[in-house]
Amino acid sequence: MRGLMMDYPLTVGKIIQRANRVFADKEVVSILPSGRKHRYTNADLYRRTVRLMNVLRRLGVKPGERVGTFMWNHHRHLELYFAIPSMGAVTHTLNIRLFPDQLAYIVNHAADAVIFVDASLLPALEAVAPQLKTVRQFVVVTEDGTEDNTEDGTEDGTGDGTEDSTEDGMPPEATLPETTLPETTLPETTLSPIAGFEALMADADETEDFPELDEFSACGMCYTSGTTGHPKGVVYSHRGIYIHTLMAGMTDMLGFGERETVLPVVPMFHANAWSVPFLAAMVGAKTVYAGQNVSPEALVPLIREEGVTFTLGVPTIWNAVLQYLRKEGGGLGELRTMIVGGSSAPPAMIRAYREEYGIEFIHAWGMTETSPLGTVNRLKKKMDHWTPEHRMAALTRVGIPAPIVELRIVDDQGQEVPPDGASPGELLVRGPAVASAYYNNPDSAVQFTEDGWFRTGDVATRDENAIVQITDRTKDLIKSGGEWISSVEMENAIMACEGVLEAAVVARPDLKYDERPVAFVVPAPGGKGVDPARIIESLSGQFAKWQLPAPEDIRQIDQIPKTSVGKFDKKVLRARLEG
Amino acid sequence: MRGLMMDYPLTVGKIIQRANRVFADKEVVSILPSGRKHRYTNADLYRRTVRLMNVLRRLGVKPGERVGTFMWNHHRHLELYFAIPSMGAVTHTLNIRLFPDQLAYIVNHAADAVIFVDASLLPALEAVAPQLKTVRQFVVVTEDGTEDNTEDGTEDGTGDGTEDSTEDGMPPEATLPETTLPETTLPETTLSPIAGFEALMADADETEDFPELDEFSACGMCYTSGTTGHPKGVVYSHRGIYIHTLMAGMTDMLGFGERETVLPVVPMFHANAWSVPFLAAMVGAKTVYAGQNVSPEALVPLIREEGVTFTLGVPTIWNAVLQYLRKEGGGLGELRTMIVGGSSAPPAMIRAYREEYGIEFIHAWGMTETSPLGTVNRLKKKMDHWTPEHRMAALTRVGIPAPIVELRIVDDQGQEVPPDGASPGELLVRGPAVASAYYNNPDSAVQFTEDGWFRTGDVATRDENAIVQITDRTKDLIKSGGEWISSVEMENAIMACEGVLEAAVVARPDLKYDERPVAFVVPAPGGKGVDPARIIESLSGQFAKWQLPAPEDIRQIDQIPKTSVGKFDKKVLRARLEG
Repeated sequence: MRGLMMDYPLTVGKIIQRANRVFADKEVVSILPSGRKHRYTNADLYRRTVRLMNVLRRLGVKPGERVGTFMWNHHRHLELYFAIPSMGAVTHTLNIRLFPDQLAYIVNHAADAVIFVDASLLPALEAVAPQLKTVRQFVVVTEDGTEDNTEDGTEDGTGDGTEDSTEDGMPPEATLPETTLPETTLPETTLSPIAGFEALMADADETEDFPELDEFSACGMCYTSGTTGHPKGVVYSHRGIYIHTLMAGMTDMLGFGERETVLPVVPMFHANAWSVPFLAAMVGAKTVYAGQNVSPEALVPLIREEGVTFTLGVPTIWNAVLQYLRKEGGGLGELRTMIVGGSSAPPAMIRAYREEYGIEFIHAWGMTETSPLGTVNRLKKKMDHWTPEHRMAALTRVGIPAPIVELRIVDDQGQEVPPDGASPGELLVRGPAVASAYYNNPDSAVQFTEDGWFRTGDVATRDENAIVQITDRTKDLIKSGGEWISSVEMENAIMACEGVLEAAVVARPDLKYDERPVAFVVPAPGGKGVDPARIIESLSGQFAKWQLPAPEDIRQIDQIPKTSVGKFDKKVLRARLEG
Repeated sequence: MRGLMMDYPLTVGKIIQRANRVFADKEVVSILPSGRKHRYTNADLYRRTVRLMNVLRRLGVKPGERVGTFMWNHHRHLELYFAIPSMGAVTHTLNIRLFPDQLAYIVNHAADAVIFVDASLLPALEAVAPQLKTVRQFVVVTEDGTEDNTEDGTEDGTGDGTEDSTEDGMPPEATLPETTLPETTLPETTLSPIAGFEALMADADETEDFPELDEFSACGMCYTSGTTGHPKGVVYSHRGIYIHTLMAGMTDMLGFGERETVLPVVPMFHANAWSVPFLAAMVGAKTVYAGQNVSPEALVPLIREEGVTFTLGVPTIWNAVLQYLRKEGGGLGELRTMIVGGSSAPPAMIRAYREEYGIEFIHAWGMTETSPLGTVNRLKKKMDHWTPEHRMAALTRVGIPAPIVELRIVDDQGQEVPPDGASPGELLVRGPAVASAYYNNPDSAVQFTEDGWFRTGDVATRDENAIVQITDRTKDLIKSGGEWISSVEMENAIMACEGVLEAAVVARPDLKYDERPVAFVVPAPGGKGVDPARIIESLSGQFAKWQLPAPEDIRQIDQIPKTSVGKFDKKVLRARLEG
């Protein structure tokens, strides 16, 4: 017997239509690449999304085609987030920090037809342009344009988008469908054919045309950089994104609503910016996009000025903000919630934000392959009665599975490990917003089990309260003398030592023990530097003797190299050991 | 291009599996029909759901078949909520307050194969049993059983379910598949064949067998009693219920999470109990089911004892609770949120709960056909700056559309009315959890537009903040001298008058004006009775002279007749006018 409910496809276009209809006056604030502040409403966002859909059509973009974005976080990137999938094409967010050969690989592999690029990022794209085989149009995004609602009033608002350029224009060379593109002056660039975003927008049709789309069709792509081989492409469906957005809005998940002002300090080129653009539009939250400067000097005043109540980002960002606050004084205004993912924050940081600044500091875990939200760690009701130490131990974990995520933690034989908070195993997940395969990548089939689970590559435990802890990446475990050492646990223990700012632990090949841990340690500013003996002493309470690094394996460095998404780049550290 | 996300059907079985896995120790508290309190955990609920799935299989229930429930709110009804759809059958919740001919009609129309009935409700079902054509098994739900975790210790826990009965058993007469049913003693009843719920459970297989189901398949049915003709059947799909549950859990919707203790004072036989059973299992909220006694004398102590923080119900219930609190003193313990639907609560009640009891009193609107949540009215951020009067005016409305609900308000020509908060039109809705048709009811096609909208039959306005107000049912509008009078607005105005407890306004046929309003008014206890002149005077500030009822059309009565779901029964009042 079939249900008699409407056949109503769950698509991204519905989300932006709702934002316009129900939350027309809510604001979107952006810091533009130049540092100027831009401000408009959902109604403006919607109008420009509609125009941009027609721009894409005019550029000959067909349903299912990939459109790349090579951009910072700001409102024009947001317009592309909605316009591309709403007209049936596929947003391919390009990581602006990829190495050139990886960037060229993913553009070619996804077969991007058009790429939108921030003017400030032109050099990085120009460097790989000769290798790009499928791009038939580049669109450069400058800050001039049709709107003049930037706050400092310096932006020119005359509307033809030509005044700010000091160089000769690069008229488009390709023959485009129906009409040629408007001529305009643009920043000097070797990209070709090139058009200007605002010139295209000024000329665009305003007809609202949201085609009916299959909810299983693709709406976005994001490549995840593997440790070996080429980056692998995740293809999001409209259905997956829509369901993930509903889930992300649930109270114990991200759970922000109309009353919040949300600042995602996560790049829009990474894993749907943790779903913030979609959820904010669906629930009517005011949003703030920080542009390219995410230093504490830029973030802290922005949080205070815009009344940000809710933010998301990696621990590195919040560590820097904390150091800044300690030095400069003052607090974070109305900020009350900080969702932290990407890697684990040390207890000292959690405690500082919670106890000194009154901010609910919440760990979450996710991956590009999980859209990305996998787990969130809000305190459970019964923890109100726990001791502060017990509660803090719980807070260092990554939380319970999201409602649309099923997870299993399995040993080498594929059996579930006991929920004792100690037995580690590989974390497998499944759900309607979890990848079923990588795009055109048969070699990666090994990451998907035959009975429909995705192998995350993370090592995890699960306790009697169903709370998950990520103890390591399978590849980052250190195998020493036949036993395992968790690099993440050792990093956290070292980072808890006085005088330590950051620490990363990797394996060094060893003839006798196979592998031994090496700790790269960044001393806290103003301290006396790293003291290996003291670190080893403080680790000895938590690690067995055979697990402890040798004194010469505790190495002071100025900073930990980070990946394009802000995680410790252990590949680089391992290379240093070899070099 | 297709998305590469897992093909993961959204089904009700996933929800109960999650409750067991992630929130095993969270409690479900029930007041049994006898008044005794029963308490167990999600782990117990899950184990019994699994057994009950196997009981249904043993009774020969096939996927797609309808299984009726004729029961109060308690844990065994909850077990059926999960077990029936999880094994692929369809829960048909029977309204225990239907008139006998309607009850017989809906059981036959849905072709229920099995009906589960509370022992205390046997007489009502026995009265119609001879008319039932499709039921091949009745199962009587008594309070004896295998578990002995009721709190007062009086429940017998020896496990064979026979002790409490004082009458001879009624062994089943039908030949059942594979085995015969266990013999047991049961309450005396003319229903046949009859079996006992706990006897079947004691004997059941514990194998966990959750079949893979199509998410578009039916999981539940609920009939809505029309004003004319027979009740009409709504058929819920697994997909619709799952998506509706995610939405209901969003912060600005019901938005309760793991930390809340939820008491739904809405019958489980009505519109999925406003989604509470599904959402509570998905997010791990402690739940309290109040059984059959929803008097203030029962509810208020229950709310205090169980630490209820979140409740839902119709205004009639909360009006009675308020009168009780005024008389008896004391508050409502930890209660902080009250979701109110079914009809509109008067401002005085809203103000009392918010200002005197610190409870967020929130209107919502929905229908059986919308699963049911259609709109919810939480205060928007910008209303913090409004005057108290302006905010109160906003609070009397039903709110913004739920994220999965699109709505239009159209005039007689099908054109959208302006969003001015004043222009009324018929409310149309669509979405993945909105009915696309009534079950086997071609005559009702008129309620569904050709372009895919459901005509709610409600008259509504929408303001510049997208906030909807239901001004009337299309059939309850009073047409007088060619103009319309809203019966609901007049009722609210009369209920705001001093000395008035409740008021219902209906149309009286009139030769000159077509129709004239008649107000049935219940005076507040301890007052001087209804004074028509004073009521008319206070209405004259809000209504035009021609709209005001004549003094003789303001009639004092002892109580307003209510429908089976607690709404004013205007059919009865109209009949009085004719009589």
